[in-house]
Amino acid sequence: MAHSHDSTEPLLGNGRPNTARLLISCADRRGIVAAVSRFLFEHGANILDADQHSTDPSGGTFFMRMEFHLEGLDLGRRELEHAFATTVAEQFAMEWRIAYASRPKRVALLVSREEHCLLDLLWRWRSGDLDAEIGLVVSNHRDAERDVESFGVPFVHVPVRRESKAQAEGEILGHLNGPHGPFELIVLARYMQILSGDFLAAASAPLINIHHSFLPAFAGADPYRRASERGVKIIGATAHYVTEELDAGPIIEQDVAHVSHRDSVADLVRIGRDIERTVLARAVARHLADRVLVHENKTVVF
Amino acid sequence: MAHSHDSTEPLLGNGRPNTARLLISCADRRGIVAAVSRFLFEHGANILDADQHSTDPSGGTFFMRMEFHLEGLDLGRRELEHAFATTVAEQFAMEWRIAYASRPKRVALLVSREEHCLLDLLWRWRSGDLDAEIGLVVSNHRDAERDVESFGVPFVHVPVRRESKAQAEGEILGHLNGPHGPFELIVLARYMQILSGDFLAAASAPLINIHHSFLPAFAGADPYRRASERGVKIIGATAHYVTEELDAGPIIEQDVAHVSHRDSVADLVRIGRDIERTVLARAVARHLADRVLVHENKTVVF
Amino acid sequence: MAHSHDSTEPLLGNGRPNTARLLISCADRRGIVAAVSRFLFEHGANILDADQHSTDPSGGTFFMRMEFHLEGLDLGRRELEHAFATTVAEQFAMEWRIAYASRPKRVALLVSREEHCLLDLLWRWRSGDLDAEIGLVVSNHRDAERDVESFGVPFVHVPVRRESKAQAEGEILGHLNGPHGPFELIVLARYMQILSGDFLAAASAPLINIHHSFLPAFAGADPYRRASERGVKIIGATAHYVTEELDAGPIIEQDVAHVSHRDSVADLVRIGRDIERTVLARAVARHLADRVLVHENKTVVF
Amino acid sequence: MAHSHDSTEPLLGNGRPNTARLLISCADRRGIVAAVSRFLFEHGANILDADQHSTDPSGGTFFMRMEFHLEGLDLGRRELEHAFATTVAEQFAMEWRIAYASRPKRVALLVSREEHCLLDLLWRWRSGDLDAEIGLVVSNHRDAERDVESFGVPFVHVPVRRESKAQAEGEILGHLNGPHGPFELIVLARYMQILSGDFLAAASAPLINIHHSFLPAFAGADPYRRASERGVKIIGATAHYVTEELDAGPIIEQDVAHVSHRDSVADLVRIGRDIERTVLARAVARHLADRVLVHENKTVVF
Repeated sequence: MAHSHDSTEPLLGNGRPNTARLLISCADRRGIVAAVSRFLFEHGANILDADQHSTDPSGGTFFMRMEFHLEGLDLGRRELEHAFATTVAEQFAMEWRIAYASRPKRVALLVSREEHCLLDLLWRWRSGDLDAEIGLVVSNHRDAERDVESFGVPFVHVPVRRESKAQAEGEILGHLNGPHGPFELIVLARYMQILSGDFLAAASAPLINIHHSFLPAFAGADPYRRASERGVKIIGATAHYVTEELDAGPIIEQDVAHVSHRDSVADLVRIGRDIERTVLARAVARHLADRVLVHENKTVVF
Repeated sequence: MAHSHDSTEPLLGNGRPNTARLLISCADRRGIVAAVSRFLFEHGANILDADQHSTDPSGGTFFMRMEFHLEGLDLGRRELEHAFATTVAEQFAMEWRIAYASRPKRVALLVSREEHCLLDLLWRWRSGDLDAEIGLVVSNHRDAERDVESFGVPFVHVPVRRESKAQAEGEILGHLNGPHGPFELIVLARYMQILSGDFLAAASAPLINIHHSFLPAFAGADPYRRASERGVKIIGATAHYVTEELDAGPIIEQDVAHVSHRDSVADLVRIGRDIERTVLARAVARHLADRVLVHENKTVVF
Repeated sequence: MAHSHDSTEPLLGNGRPNTARLLISCADRRGIVAAVSRFLFEHGANILDADQHSTDPSGGTFFMRMEFHLEGLDLGRRELEHAFATTVAEQFAMEWRIAYASRPKRVALLVSREEHCLLDLLWRWRSGDLDAEIGLVVSNHRDAERDVESFGVPFVHVPVRRESKAQAEGEILGHLNGPHGPFELIVLARYMQILSGDFLAAASAPLINIHHSFLPAFAGADPYRRASERGVKIIGATAHYVTEELDAGPIIEQDVAHVSHRDSVADLVRIGRDIERTVLARAVARHLADRVLVHENKTVVF
Repeated sequence: MAHSHDSTEPLLGNGRPNTARLLISCADRRGIVAAVSRFLFEHGANILDADQHSTDPSGGTFFMRMEFHLEGLDLGRRELEHAFATTVAEQFAMEWRIAYASRPKRVALLVSREEHCLLDLLWRWRSGDLDAEIGLVVSNHRDAERDVESFGVPFVHVPVRRESKAQAEGEILGHLNGPHGPFELIVLARYMQILSGDFLAAASAPLINIHHSFLPAFAGADPYRRASERGVKIIGATAHYVTEELDAGPIIEQDVAHVSHRDSVADLVRIGRDIERTVLARAVARHLADRVLVHENKTVVF
């Protein structure tokens, strides 16, 4: 099972690491690191990895991620969280959460016709590079059905027509919350329908989208054609959290490739596919490892 | 002396290569390459380098650049051009020109306060990497004066105030066409004043600008601040020919660097400087080597 | 069907472009381009794309690739080749060949346990990005069998043991020249057995290998472990033609990724996979488009 | 004055940040972060930035860098260091040091004929991007003399002949420890003489070298020629600490550029210059910010 940095750590009976990730954001002031690390040390946790960031040491926002072993801890999970809330979090008015690596996150994928991002995620998942449990693929087309099922993943087809879009969204929600669900992450792996604010509110899980341009350039439809018309020398792709405003959500990851006058729109599409699938995979992996914090429409990616 | 590909070629008495560059664009049809290469062969030219591009073999536009030795040619320059015009160019309704490498292009630089691009060009020029004759630097500030003069290049200071902008532009034109001029290329090496259409028309030389963002993202003012606010993970720079529409001219070269939440606006500015100077230097070098053709607000860069 | 640059060109009945690619290398001298382009023009060919390169205009080697339409040609293939041989090639003592795009090249893949490169090629092939006919996969393990067959490609298992290596190579040759063969290209998609000089001689097709390091650094076994021990900040992958000397054949394509002290050997392996599959796919695509010429253990990649 | 991340922090009277950087390495075990952060908190320090890394949580080596404000501290520097040594460092058997940002590090540069790296460092220094006090340039040639002096930096010429190399090294040491010295960092900005182990021992400051290849490929002399002969598609540069074994010291930073068959050795040299100066500048900046720890011939670069 995929776990990146620490091949030597003790594993649980299910072969997974027995670690937790504490994520914090709060107003920056003295003593935060000391308070958190003392708390963990006093309860027997061994810190494996720590990252912190402050937008401004005086008056800014402080972000921290600490990954630690649960083995040897003197408290159960519930007690640990309760103790942290009352002895540390309250004092610093923290927003915080603890995620446990003992169980992979459940993920649903949405896709339309282009399946390069979808298949790339499924391969990485099968080869152990993506620490998730992919439990469902939903598509408004049937193109990917056979491929998805060959990975042993359930596939449902929800056609979307302009006049019955709300109904289709309801049907998708039904599947997400149905027998295969619920899900902790929804990935739009080149899903080409715009989702309504109602859907996003009801989905109750973050959504990651891959946009096939270097945002904010060429937001909206048909970016490769527009890039070609503008004569740019670089194209890119952007993975971001989905918000109600189209292509304007917090950016998680971006990458680019050089192109030239020799490349037609079809070439840009082909070159773009490699960037898209890499960028989306990186963003999803970061999210699954609880490495992304959102703050004012921007991300802190540890 | 800077000349990139062919260290073995015979040189002129002034140490410069005795080569010419023929640039062509015309409607694509059969026989263009054959006609041009036969013409050159029959007059004794040896082709050193050839590039061609067609936007579409049926009904598109054809572009070609051929670099050839003048040594052994049976015609003088004027006769060669006349012969080409009448025996080849007319038949294919070509737009064409021949540039000679025996003389470097005369270049003027405009700069405001930030001098990293200016100094980079001057240093490349002095070390022989930029095949030009830099004959004048014009600035609306005095910051760069001493540095420019240490390179032995004349410096003139033309302050620009909002209320007398037209007058300042006239003064600059006077310098460009004065004793140091005329110039075949004007480079805006972080010149932060918007130039009027009248100026561009009167300048009678192409202008290359470096914009400190990855166009078309963040066109206009203050791109690094806006990039930081949008939370992008990549910043870039764009070198383009100047047209009357701000930041919308044909793009010659672009490049980018990865950034993260750790980078403040000041960091983006600092990181951006390295990209800006590299991108501008590459674009200027391509132009000086007669490698850039413009077509419908896009470039073909051979 | 995949074909990169010219979506507008006339297609054959089988949906493939009716074009040919003429590849030339010879001692450089005057008149080569003129002679070749006149020959093609006089026989009615329309040049779609042309590239040339000279290692040195006086006394060097000249390389050229011309892609042209066969439609409208006044000669059949055999007559064209004969005419070219006698009227042009002989005069300049050219090495040359003409490849026809009307038929995709037949390709065999060899793989061991790691299937990321294999699956990537198969998926690009299925989505039309790889202009080939993949006719056979040979492996010394059974791991990839089911996946390969799901693409409708025959799979044969040829176990290799140290003591019977020559016999195994004979068996592989038998498959390559058997009912599924013959093949015009053999791709080692992470095939971890060293092939003997006898095998290479008998294979009668070029072999492309992907080496999981930035050659010539870390040639030989276990490059990621050695890269980690040396503390490099960049890892890479190299696609090259296979020659008898291990990891020393002509390099077709290379790329890299930045790494840091945080990346364990396992991380390098994982990051490396993405570079390997991209680099191999690019090299194979270039070869299939007849864009690679070999000269003194180096490549010219047009 | 250059200081990267925190434009808002209180400055000293000399305009410099009043911060310290604590660098630690020790055997990894529980409680290190808690002990260090409690110590700093209890003495009134505000942590601005913290990075940590463990080669292995069980039995590996732990590295940490903490940057904190001195303002509000209840101890002077000497007392702080003493208190840390006795209450924290001893307990964990730490190797540690505290560096103070209140004073820039004194740096000497060594150069031979190629001055692109030297001038680049001097420009960055003058424009405030390099937080150092460049106090001396030593060269075995006179080429750079006038340029160096135009930056107001003393220049000394120490010619090196094969038969009197030891004497020349002694002379250089004399300058490094003379009226302009001593220095805390020596940068070999394309200094093309191999320095003896005796010199390195006597220099009593770390040395950073820029090697003009992607190490470990093409270690030793003339790397661009050898890269061209091998036909690589990427060239690079490597900044590393100097050790007695040539080109084998701990790597701090590397970067690369793509090249092709079109690039002659002279082109590689020219392209390489841009990579060299960028890579060296990054490595020096990291060192000056006390962000590099060395461990078993590898670096941890925070």
